[in-house]
Amino acid sequence: MSTLFVRTLREDPVDAEVASHKLLVRAGYIRRAAPGIYSWLPLGLRVLGKIEAIVRAEMNASGAQEVHFPALLPKEPYEASNRWEEYGPNIFRLQDRKEADYLLAPTHEEMFTLLVKDLYSSYKDLPLMLYQIQTKYRDEARPRAGLLRGREFIMKDAYSFDIDEEALRVSYASQRDAYERIFDRLGLDYVIVSAMSGAMGGSFSEEFLHPSDVGEDTYVRSPGGYAANIEAVTTPVPPDADATGVRAAHVEDTPDTPTIETLVDFANDHFPRSDRPWQAADTLKNVAITATHPDGRREVLVVGVPGDRQVDMDRLQAAMEPALVEAATDEDLANRPELVPGYMGPAVLGPNGAPRDQDDSDGSAGTGAARYLLDPRIVPGTVWMTGANEPGKHVFDLVAGRDFTADGTIEAAEVRAGDPAPDGSGPLELARGIEVGHVFALGTTYAAALGLNVLDENGKTRVVTMGSYGLGVTRVLAAIAEATHDENGLCWPVQVAPAHLHIVATGKDPHVLTTAEQIAADLDAEGVEVLLDDRPKVSAGVKFADAELLGVPYTLVVGRGLADGVVEFRERASGARHDIQAGVAATEVRHRLAEAGL
Amino acid sequence: MSTLFVRTLREDPVDAEVASHKLLVRAGYIRRAAPGIYSWLPLGLRVLGKIEAIVRAEMNASGAQEVHFPALLPKEPYEASNRWEEYGPNIFRLQDRKEADYLLAPTHEEMFTLLVKDLYSSYKDLPLMLYQIQTKYRDEARPRAGLLRGREFIMKDAYSFDIDEEALRVSYASQRDAYERIFDRLGLDYVIVSAMSGAMGGSFSEEFLHPSDVGEDTYVRSPGGYAANIEAVTTPVPPDADATGVRAAHVEDTPDTPTIETLVDFANDHFPRSDRPWQAADTLKNVAITATHPDGRREVLVVGVPGDRQVDMDRLQAAMEPALVEAATDEDLANRPELVPGYMGPAVLGPNGAPRDQDDSDGSAGTGAARYLLDPRIVPGTVWMTGANEPGKHVFDLVAGRDFTADGTIEAAEVRAGDPAPDGSGPLELARGIEVGHVFALGTTYAAALGLNVLDENGKTRVVTMGSYGLGVTRVLAAIAEATHDENGLCWPVQVAPAHLHIVATGKDPHVLTTAEQIAADLDAEGVEVLLDDRPKVSAGVKFADAELLGVPYTLVVGRGLADGVVEFRERASGARHDIQAGVAATEVRHRLAEAGL
Repeated sequence: MSTLFVRTLREDPVDAEVASHKLLVRAGYIRRAAPGIYSWLPLGLRVLGKIEAIVRAEMNASGAQEVHFPALLPKEPYEASNRWEEYGPNIFRLQDRKEADYLLAPTHEEMFTLLVKDLYSSYKDLPLMLYQIQTKYRDEARPRAGLLRGREFIMKDAYSFDIDEEALRVSYASQRDAYERIFDRLGLDYVIVSAMSGAMGGSFSEEFLHPSDVGEDTYVRSPGGYAANIEAVTTPVPPDADATGVRAAHVEDTPDTPTIETLVDFANDHFPRSDRPWQAADTLKNVAITATHPDGRREVLVVGVPGDRQVDMDRLQAAMEPALVEAATDEDLANRPELVPGYMGPAVLGPNGAPRDQDDSDGSAGTGAARYLLDPRIVPGTVWMTGANEPGKHVFDLVAGRDFTADGTIEAAEVRAGDPAPDGSGPLELARGIEVGHVFALGTTYAAALGLNVLDENGKTRVVTMGSYGLGVTRVLAAIAEATHDENGLCWPVQVAPAHLHIVATGKDPHVLTTAEQIAADLDAEGVEVLLDDRPKVSAGVKFADAELLGVPYTLVVGRGLADGVVEFRERASGARHDIQAGVAATEVRHRLAEAGL
Repeated sequence: MSTLFVRTLREDPVDAEVASHKLLVRAGYIRRAAPGIYSWLPLGLRVLGKIEAIVRAEMNASGAQEVHFPALLPKEPYEASNRWEEYGPNIFRLQDRKEADYLLAPTHEEMFTLLVKDLYSSYKDLPLMLYQIQTKYRDEARPRAGLLRGREFIMKDAYSFDIDEEALRVSYASQRDAYERIFDRLGLDYVIVSAMSGAMGGSFSEEFLHPSDVGEDTYVRSPGGYAANIEAVTTPVPPDADATGVRAAHVEDTPDTPTIETLVDFANDHFPRSDRPWQAADTLKNVAITATHPDGRREVLVVGVPGDRQVDMDRLQAAMEPALVEAATDEDLANRPELVPGYMGPAVLGPNGAPRDQDDSDGSAGTGAARYLLDPRIVPGTVWMTGANEPGKHVFDLVAGRDFTADGTIEAAEVRAGDPAPDGSGPLELARGIEVGHVFALGTTYAAALGLNVLDENGKTRVVTMGSYGLGVTRVLAAIAEATHDENGLCWPVQVAPAHLHIVATGKDPHVLTTAEQIAADLDAEGVEVLLDDRPKVSAGVKFADAELLGVPYTLVVGRGLADGVVEFRERASGARHDIQAGVAATEVRHRLAEAGL
């Protein structure tokens, strides 16, 4: 500690909101170099190296072969896959001195695909699993939470290459298993959630989430074992309702009712139901959205959901990929005068509205009616109160299927605790998590776009089937810090700790320092990684506080007790303390570390 | 080999000129991703990892502490050091989504300086040595020779921080020693050459060059032990000559003599000397140069050298840093009508020419005479034949000091074999080398520019004295390949080889493959890294050729001899072959590897 390049800080950095960010900076593990870009100090680099070593060992054990791609890449492969455009402002782009376009790669599907195309040509070459541990770049709009969402970060990304879907499932399973082993070895709690509804043909995808209140991902789980990312939750479609006998739709004056709440109150006052009060769930809420498509086209569309639910912009975004969505702006609405804020209704929307040109069937160009997408709960026969497309007017007893239709359904409504799991396994509960891994059956998208084919056993050309498997190495480090810290500082599991043992020498007695140094030397010779606090003129209190902040799992205090022939062994996580005879301290510590699995 | 991700190529890649580039691509170690940018395949990555491990071990042993900086960095620190401008087109620049300027760092002096400033404040914190092994970027005008001059490459860069020059010398020596140990362990031949003339105050600098015909650096050495980069060679200044009795300068008609050769021939024909023939060394050659300064200003200046020497543009460039030099263009000369190509002479140059404005004393703006810099051999009293600034006219008996002066001297003339070493240690010989390391006493330049100060023992503020120490990791890999390859392929020293032993199983006898697998398993269990060629349906000839191309240092052939109970052990470098009893093959191989230092 007297020569280690570290300075601990007593104050949290001003830009830090989450514990891992605060503590990693305060303990001298990382320093901010630019928004979302960090420098690694010696202690941080040691932890990072240990995490990488575990990831590498399990990747190798899974049969994956390590390669390494450049971070600086030419535009062309990303144009071929259409991602140069799709990434929009989320990637760093640059030109070289000859004005050729380059990017800093956010992920390497294209390069892996092209490399395999370059070397392999036969089904006999498959299956193949390649991986790298590499620095990646994303120009995040809002880098946040330190290492949890950075702009320069380290990822392990692996890619599988198989002859068909069946073989892909084997590769996918091997990586999923490897991820379980990695997170188990790291001591990081995780849940595996579906990340895709399954609607996209042969593709399937799961996320490894570390449950954490500071996570950006919301996921659900049911008592029966269903688990999914919130974006992947599908809504069980109720059976069609019987609308026989429902009176014809009728427009009523409902002045000053631009919100669901005001509408429901007004209806209960002026048009009370005989069976029960009107509820928000009786209303059909129509929300105008703007989707910006990869080619730059802006489309205003309307999403209809039961009035007791919000539109969840993350779920809407996932459903609308690769378009980017936002709430429709005043300007967008000015171009769509038929959309009356607060009083939108199906009559002017989708198939119910103005006819479209044949070459404009999605209504995106602003001619004809705006595209209209409905929540899956709005099945034929359900009865709704909704906007009548005039200020102060709503329509009652509007029956889906009878009185209106839509261009399709969309999973955009919020998911709520208590909603039924789509597989019937019970009510959902919601939680937040940090996405630490993602396994993704890509299928043939990239291979087809980039021409990765092999000859099969009959000499016929086959497009290769791929999978991609990402694991955020720097994010995992932050997640472990989040999961293990306490109010006094970091608290590393021994397998990733920057050292196994922290020896604190206190007081001014030279014999104390000599003894501490001897114990450190003895243990070091046995392969125990020791951090020795030999700083002169630093108080015992500061040394103890630093030891807790740095978070080495075990501490040996050599100090006043030495006069009685004892030193103290402390366990960081539990706070447990035991005296040890100084003469056998090294042996005893070795024994205790062995008990802890070292 | 049946599953390893590698394909060997029989043909050299079309863009490859040097052996390391050809062979690393052909043997499947690297693949080109863009000009000067390479992907690493499994075998290449293994070699790279072993080199990095040796570098890291020796850096740690030297007391240096490992850190890691981002590659993507904000402009500001590089503006503070003036390098944002000085680098010109040699760095990759980009903007993020908020239009903030960034660069891909070519080297990290600024960031290390700022990090130490951030954490340290006292002389007690020094000395400090930090290093990283990191991916760097330079937008080379002409990336060439594969890994020898790339645009994305890996460097180890270390930086020392000391209280004063004396302490810096200790740090510098420790890194110089570490470099010697590293190159010794890598088995890479090297010479240490001065990289700076010593004219720059307290700075000193040496390069580690690997002698190689494909190297870009020319260096010199003398029998007495002088060694220097060609740019650092200084010219011994001869004593002033006695020009007493030399007749007054006189202009003569010398039609059609725009070159030194035509001039000397003409003079010998029309103005013969009594003592000996005129020689090129009697002429003063004046060469017009354009220097582009960091602020964009273009200056035409003239360099005068003895007519028997060329101007060496690399030496000129080094002498003119940070300006960029090139031969003056026709356009440049059109703006300087007094410079008559083929007939330039001192009369219109420097202090001898038109007067300059006071605020334009370097003549750079094109007003007044062009700046005039002379080779150090042109001392007062020397007599010259040179241009008279009119086509077809030269001036004879022009005496330096008597008839003309200059704005200064410059080391721009070519260095030739046989030139005297500046320290009197004998005649120089020239050789070419690959720069694999550079140790550089920076002094206080960066610390002063970025405000890195500490308090000394008297409480006074002191600017920190720094050194920088670079080692090209990917370039070292290529240099080892250059040094060790032969006509059949790569030939790695065992300490960096991708495997220790290559086992080739030949023929179709299943017993052969079983035996080979058993030997491989036995050795693997003992920690020997084995590459087993178990490919079915590949001929023995192809397997042997691949083994030689891949360059693993030892090969064990398990094949036909097995019927007689023997296998063959081959040494890649010497070609030596020995039979070994199959029953004890693993033991015997282990013994031979141990003899080789494994």
